[in-house]
Amino acid sequence: MSRARLALLQSNPVVGDIAGNAEQIVAAARRAVDAGADLLATGEMALTGYPIEDLAAEPSFLRAASDGVRALAGRLAAEGLGELPVVVGHPDGPHAPRLLGATNAPTAIAQNCASVLHRGEVVARYVKHHLPNYGVFDEYRNFIPEDDSLVVVAGDARVAVIICEDLWLDDGPVARVRDLGADLLLVVNASPFERDKDEVRLPLATRRAAEAGIPVAYVNLVGGQDDLVFDGDSFVVAPDGSLLARAPQFEEHLLVVDVPLHGTSVPAAAEPSLDEAGSPNRVAVLPDDREQLWSALVLGLRDYVEKNRFPSVVLGLSGGIDSSVCAAIAADAIGADRVHGVSMPSRWSSEHSRSDADDLAARIGLHYSVEPIAGLVQPFEEQLGLAGVAAENVQARARGVILMAKSNQRGHLVLTTGNKTELAVGYSTIYGDSAGGFAPIKDVPKTLVWELARWRNAAAQARGETPPIPESSIAKPPSAELRPDQTDQDTLPPYELLDEILDAYVSRRLGREDVVALGFDPETVRFVANLVDRAEWKRRQGAIGPRISGMAFGRDRRLPITVRRAPWVE
Amino acid sequence: MSRARLALLQSNPVVGDIAGNAEQIVAAARRAVDAGADLLATGEMALTGYPIEDLAAEPSFLRAASDGVRALAGRLAAEGLGELPVVVGHPDGPHAPRLLGATNAPTAIAQNCASVLHRGEVVARYVKHHLPNYGVFDEYRNFIPEDDSLVVVAGDARVAVIICEDLWLDDGPVARVRDLGADLLLVVNASPFERDKDEVRLPLATRRAAEAGIPVAYVNLVGGQDDLVFDGDSFVVAPDGSLLARAPQFEEHLLVVDVPLHGTSVPAAAEPSLDEAGSPNRVAVLPDDREQLWSALVLGLRDYVEKNRFPSVVLGLSGGIDSSVCAAIAADAIGADRVHGVSMPSRWSSEHSRSDADDLAARIGLHYSVEPIAGLVQPFEEQLGLAGVAAENVQARARGVILMAKSNQRGHLVLTTGNKTELAVGYSTIYGDSAGGFAPIKDVPKTLVWELARWRNAAAQARGETPPIPESSIAKPPSAELRPDQTDQDTLPPYELLDEILDAYVSRRLGREDVVALGFDPETVRFVANLVDRAEWKRRQGAIGPRISGMAFGRDRRLPITVRRAPWVE
Repeated sequence: MSRARLALLQSNPVVGDIAGNAEQIVAAARRAVDAGADLLATGEMALTGYPIEDLAAEPSFLRAASDGVRALAGRLAAEGLGELPVVVGHPDGPHAPRLLGATNAPTAIAQNCASVLHRGEVVARYVKHHLPNYGVFDEYRNFIPEDDSLVVVAGDARVAVIICEDLWLDDGPVARVRDLGADLLLVVNASPFERDKDEVRLPLATRRAAEAGIPVAYVNLVGGQDDLVFDGDSFVVAPDGSLLARAPQFEEHLLVVDVPLHGTSVPAAAEPSLDEAGSPNRVAVLPDDREQLWSALVLGLRDYVEKNRFPSVVLGLSGGIDSSVCAAIAADAIGADRVHGVSMPSRWSSEHSRSDADDLAARIGLHYSVEPIAGLVQPFEEQLGLAGVAAENVQARARGVILMAKSNQRGHLVLTTGNKTELAVGYSTIYGDSAGGFAPIKDVPKTLVWELARWRNAAAQARGETPPIPESSIAKPPSAELRPDQTDQDTLPPYELLDEILDAYVSRRLGREDVVALGFDPETVRFVANLVDRAEWKRRQGAIGPRISGMAFGRDRRLPITVRRAPWVE
Repeated sequence: MSRARLALLQSNPVVGDIAGNAEQIVAAARRAVDAGADLLATGEMALTGYPIEDLAAEPSFLRAASDGVRALAGRLAAEGLGELPVVVGHPDGPHAPRLLGATNAPTAIAQNCASVLHRGEVVARYVKHHLPNYGVFDEYRNFIPEDDSLVVVAGDARVAVIICEDLWLDDGPVARVRDLGADLLLVVNASPFERDKDEVRLPLATRRAAEAGIPVAYVNLVGGQDDLVFDGDSFVVAPDGSLLARAPQFEEHLLVVDVPLHGTSVPAAAEPSLDEAGSPNRVAVLPDDREQLWSALVLGLRDYVEKNRFPSVVLGLSGGIDSSVCAAIAADAIGADRVHGVSMPSRWSSEHSRSDADDLAARIGLHYSVEPIAGLVQPFEEQLGLAGVAAENVQARARGVILMAKSNQRGHLVLTTGNKTELAVGYSTIYGDSAGGFAPIKDVPKTLVWELARWRNAAAQARGETPPIPESSIAKPPSAELRPDQTDQDTLPPYELLDEILDAYVSRRLGREDVVALGFDPETVRFVANLVDRAEWKRRQGAIGPRISGMAFGRDRRLPITVRRAPWVE
């Protein structure tokens, strides 16, 4: 019975760090050779990180990437690893746009490639056929496609190589794989995490494996890159639908797997092969929904901090649920010792705000300080004669100034703790509580913030640890506390209702009438939709934060600030 | 001798305001009929405004646009204008992505169309062939192309219709125009202003007219839409290269022009026809470079204010050149009576800062107030123990809080006065002087700010008016005045040098080594490039402002925040 032993590298590259990313690949090649692998494959653009955005239009960057591929081939050979075929993802260029027939895409002078390195040379290259240019993807802007095929011979196997989006199209290159006489289909991916995306990817790959009649090996990147989080979840699926191996989500991993070829179908247990620890084909179990989301938020924050080399983070602790959850995420991401929380009570802050913040700080063990703002705000109020919203906003802005000053003093990254619901309706003070370089829960609706808080506490309890988030922060009615006895629900519909309307209006892009047709009160829909439309200018100036949905503010939803919607909806 | 009388509507639509934009077209149709025109044509997407961005993915918006086209046809007929063929630009949809064969573009369910309205019906439709997806354009994200041709019969003329990008490709639809037996090529455009762009558009259209052997009528939008400024500059050029008519830049205009057909070539003066005032074919003279730039900045700010219905603007006046130029632009845009300037001296502000701001306010005649910040800053310094950069930034942030408070009190739009050079190197305080909803000079390098100031003063002088900008603000060395005796040149290279390096590194996307190879000092290049790279997170949170170059921060230059450039450049 024939088989191929594949090593799939689920790596966490840093965008632009060609030398560092190449080191990850060399180290993996060493382990792959030790494990007797026939082929090593990386994720899409593993050499440069993904997405490179308009770096694709910088000739010097593309030259560095092209040099980097050749250098990596040489380096592997010099290390005695040259016999192992390595499929590595990278951008290629610069190419003259005209030579590529792309007169209407003057900035796209790059190609999205997977190259085969062998015996010190770049021996073959596949160029991505289908360029996603929707949602978070801008590949038609940055790359030029081709439509040639590639088959790599690895041991007994003929391995057809495609890249990411190529797998998704019914009339894509998978349809040609049979004609190529391939025994195995390798898909090189940079597929960002979204809630429930694993419910799409694996069935898709399974369908393609059945269509082509050969196993599909799916290798993905892992790690945070600005607002995207790559979740890994690399796997191999047989044409009969059996899952031969699956790498853990949200971790760097080298998945070594024996893949039966030519229609042989052997249960993994009966045909032991090696993962990196020398154990049989590993089939990692996917964590449940909440754990996946929490892990994505943690990884997104961790990688933003580490890749940008921040020593620590600072955030305001109001005693409320949002800042509490952000603090818990930060502590899980980089350790409580690198997290600085500041309680900034005003004259309107309740006793529980202060005590809940104290409690949170103690539970998590983060650095904690208290900076009352009354003495900072009063001079503004008096000099400018402030009242109403203007006075409320000065309180929030004084807090922003405090956190930024602490950042200037100590190099902390400032976290801004707004959730997706607030961002949607503009329920925040720009340059105030929205100040910061990273927004850990910007793609988390308020109702999900509560759910994640409860999940995180329960997870702690299950492990015999102290739940990080005070029960009181979860249970009490949310309030901005910018005036006496204020609660969010004085101004906004109940969050359960609000999040449902936002899901329809924002995430599903429904028109106002279509939202009303779902059964919501027309006046409430109008009120909410107007808030959403008017807050676009604030969102445009907001911090980035990890995307966990299929419709995050930012890359997914690109709308004009200047727009008159009323005439066509009312 | 045969001719066609065309009416080209250079309109200023508001994105989303289908009813209002349709009114502009009806009014133009009335004037076109009165002028005896054979055809009225609008710019690209004149019915909805351009760009609509992801509104193209909202089915309710597309339905409203499609209904709007039919309603417009009916309205024209009802007004007795139905005999005039009207070519109107609009988006069409929603279409099912799969029906259009676009399985890999799930959000693009719209098409970019020009429809012919006649006798109350939408009688024909052209769908844009070539979708720009570079620079500021994202049309491949938002639209699906087709490749059918359209010829409209108007009087004696067979008019072939294409849309914008279709004109730019050598192998585009212009090549087929001869086969269609067309007498005239109509190009429907939404072509944003860029410095020197008129030096490209007219020669291009002239070349196409010669290639096709027929006149080319080029109709463009005018007006500001977020960061884009459409400059109009609609024109008609004959196949022999003679310019038959040209509309004024930066103004709404209905250009009525008699176009000789079938190779007849008659000087405009010998064949009088009508522009809107009943005078012969008008050939507007393009203003000089500085006037074009100033007009673009003025129009960009005016339309942001008016389309978003701000009553007024407020800005900080430091006595420096940037805020002075912004105040002058604002006064030119919406009148000095709607401009509020605030001098916010600190303990480090020089006497001339205050007196230059006073002088500027008096020259322009804007509303002026003084808010010293010492008493606002000191409580922060004392409570937080601030020194150095942290203390400097608190001064800038106190000013931001003041301006935002005034905005909250009175509804002013806050203008942030940073120039492109500052934005490039991050020489600003985020949430401080960068606070604001619109940045009038964000695409103007510092050296050009000075040039425009001198030009504006000279233009005033030539008209016998008071030059708006104090000579001292132009002449004195720039300083942020955040500490005693500070000047920008303590920290930055001289602006002339800095702007040259930035032109190479930012605008031309050259690598560091390539910039050094131009002859710049390597250490200075490294210093500047590092500043640029590190400021990306601040730029991401910056206000929008009018784009006047081919490489504005924002849409033109989309780079990751998290990136390690060093390993491949040093």
